[in-house]
Amino acid sequence: MTNFKKIELGKINEIKNKEQGKIFIHDELNLTSCEVSINCSKKGFKVPFLHKHKNNEEIYIFLKGKGIMEIDNEKIEVKEGSIVKIAPPAIRTMENASDEDLEYIVIQAKENSLEGYTMTDAEIV
Amino acid sequence: MTNFKKIELGKINEIKNKEQGKIFIHDELNLTSCEVSINCSKKGFKVPFLHKHKNNEEIYIFLKGKGIMEIDNEKIEVKEGSIVKIAPPAIRTMENASDEDLEYIVIQAKENSLEGYTMTDAEIV
Repeated sequence: MTNFKKIELGKINEIKNKEQGKIFIHDELNLTSCEVSINCSKKGFKVPFLHKHKNNEEIYIFLKGKGIMEIDNEKIEVKEGSIVKIAPPAIRTMENASDEDLEYIVIQAKENSLEGYTMTDAEIV
Repeated sequence: MTNFKKIELGKINEIKNKEQGKIFIHDELNLTSCEVSINCSKKGFKVPFLHKHKNNEEIYIFLKGKGIMEIDNEKIEVKEGSIVKIAPPAIRTMENASDEDLEYIVIQAKENSLEGYTMTDAEIV
């Protein structure tokens, strides 16, 4: 067993042709700290439900296109470079809000699980 | 206090003009589950040290360009769609390996901290 594992998803823009325009990577990489999805949705795509989480914080990172997130009944606009953190109990959904594809990454990890980070967890060798 | 927070980083390609071509978002968004950096490095960029982690798993998501990661003395090639999970003790570094900018995202979160995920943590409302 090596200490790392790599997968190849190919072009991110082609993920729009997958079911729900989404690839989850937890199971592919045997992640133990978070779940991550890589997403590309077409014009007109809307997440068909509202959801919240029990324990996991979510972080949405937008790479391309324009979207509208609805969080606790508040609508917010997102575009390339928008990053949104959402606490577990918030009720959320989102949609592609332009004629372009909407590319984004979603991370979910357990709220309050992080201890050290960057220079308090890393060691220069 | 709302249950969410948004920041705007602007064009990801322009992050190459920041110090080390990197923006960390933990402190900006008051994250509690992970640290995330959004990165764009120029041709010729090489992380100037080797490092490992105490407790955090790292996940590298490559968006554009070509790079070479060195992990425990093994060199691996990465490009758009490559995703690499690295266990805490692995000794790692990386470099931009082409004439293009190298765009990527790095997540670090505590190894073995994740309990439920997706449908075992989410609740449809």
